[in-house]
Amino acid sequence: MSHDTQRARARAFLDLHTDTTDGPLLLANAWDAASAVVFERLGVAAVGTSSAGVAASLGYPDGEHVPREEMIAAIDRIAGSVAVPVSADIEAGYGDTPEAVAETVARTLDAGAVGVNLEDGTGDPENPLRPTAEHAARIRAAREADDDVGVPAVVNGRTDVFWAGVGDEADRLDRAVERANAYVDAGSDCVFVPGVADAETIDALATRIDAPLNVLGGPGAPSVPELGDLGVARVSVGSGPMRATLGKLESIGEELLETGTYEGMEGGVPYGDLAELLSAARARREE
Amino acid sequence: MSHDTQRARARAFLDLHTDTTDGPLLLANAWDAASAVVFERLGVAAVGTSSAGVAASLGYPDGEHVPREEMIAAIDRIAGSVAVPVSADIEAGYGDTPEAVAETVARTLDAGAVGVNLEDGTGDPENPLRPTAEHAARIRAAREADDDVGVPAVVNGRTDVFWAGVGDEADRLDRAVERANAYVDAGSDCVFVPGVADAETIDALATRIDAPLNVLGGPGAPSVPELGDLGVARVSVGSGPMRATLGKLESIGEELLETGTYEGMEGGVPYGDLAELLSAARARREE
Repeated sequence: MSHDTQRARARAFLDLHTDTTDGPLLLANAWDAASAVVFERLGVAAVGTSSAGVAASLGYPDGEHVPREEMIAAIDRIAGSVAVPVSADIEAGYGDTPEAVAETVARTLDAGAVGVNLEDGTGDPENPLRPTAEHAARIRAAREADDDVGVPAVVNGRTDVFWAGVGDEADRLDRAVERANAYVDAGSDCVFVPGVADAETIDALATRIDAPLNVLGGPGAPSVPELGDLGVARVSVGSGPMRATLGKLESIGEELLETGTYEGMEGGVPYGDLAELLSAARARREE
Repeated sequence: MSHDTQRARARAFLDLHTDTTDGPLLLANAWDAASAVVFERLGVAAVGTSSAGVAASLGYPDGEHVPREEMIAAIDRIAGSVAVPVSADIEAGYGDTPEAVAETVARTLDAGAVGVNLEDGTGDPENPLRPTAEHAARIRAAREADDDVGVPAVVNGRTDVFWAGVGDEADRLDRAVERANAYVDAGSDCVFVPGVADAETIDALATRIDAPLNVLGGPGAPSVPELGDLGVARVSVGSGPMRATLGKLESIGEELLETGTYEGMEGGVPYGDLAELLSAARARREE
């Protein structure tokens, strides 16, 4: 894709966070090229990647176990296969320093993404969250990443206060808001707070955070329109769709082993449709 | 995996084609590491790859559009993630000459597979099938491939007489049998005839082909036990499971766009289960 095209895509993606008259931006999280093109054909406005989904597809558990090069190659395959904006889940940025995070972000943009998620969770049960100032410095580095494309990424700063269940439940809201606003001050365009499903908490987050709010949709969470009514600007679905398709695969496999029949395989995307979809994706990648 | 382990796995895989007292060998076709580990956890005896599934996941249509290196890397991820034998669908062998096919097969075994499919279909509507002797020479080359592992692949010669609907319907059976037996003479351990669902035809193929018969299971085909009764030794399912999961993804996406709800996302593999499965797969790859 040309840099002009990518810059236009980045601007369009940013606009989708503020123009929410038709409801929140629904970010459909893909994990490979096929899932991305299927979502695009349905008419989603933007595609996200799911780090857990990409990792599983490549044979790794979530949590930056995938080598950075493999993760970026997967983002490249996804971003190159669709015409809608793609935001990449790059976990905590794959690097110890803000400079390393900036390099990851630059490489991610060079791979065709126009947005990134950056989380403050560490995966370490002893110290589950990076200090606020440290994560803010990483957000700032991401914001200023010097990529070849010449366009700043749409940066989605994520706080895992709720997701990782850190500290007293009573003051999680305050701590999440404090972190979120520090990330906004550092240049985050949007703030992602996964792990909240309670309407009152979501309402408070949307009111008190000085940027568009992203929450995670999925079983147990309010519906996308309900989240919109609470002030949410962006709803992503993480690894939910990927894990649901693996649940479908389990039922197909169980049926094959138990009765040797194929009911679960009915209703699939026809072979010819898949070939057409992927031929179009391939042509796009070669543009 | 050690070469001893891989040799043992190859022998076990070959035995599964002849020890069919419990019914045919069910080869569950995966397209990435996650689908392979899900099938393995259910207890399948062997995993196949689906060339169409792998290609779609990587952003290419089926038919050797995936660069050979990318296809082999995907096979490596799948074969490295499970402990059961993996047979790789390498289409027509990714090469113009028998020597090139032998190199593809050697690389595929080095990537951890213990079996290969080799098809005589060309994808060219003018000349849909490679001449019999030419394909037989490629089978022989695959049989003799000089890999680092020091174990011959379980070679599954495939004829696309039915799949590609070549020539008069009336003599397709004779032509398929003639090709199949030429491939057996060239060293094929098993013969794959996709595109047949009619019991009488399958029965005749099983009787007249001088090696274990592999047919494609899926909607419209007899069940696995019925195929066993007809003399089929191996049932694979091609891209059916992958396309079914994409159908599931379509319904998830439609629901998200239409009502913004998440019913289709229920019943997925839980996040923690997926992490455990992939942690085990990763540990296996690092052995």
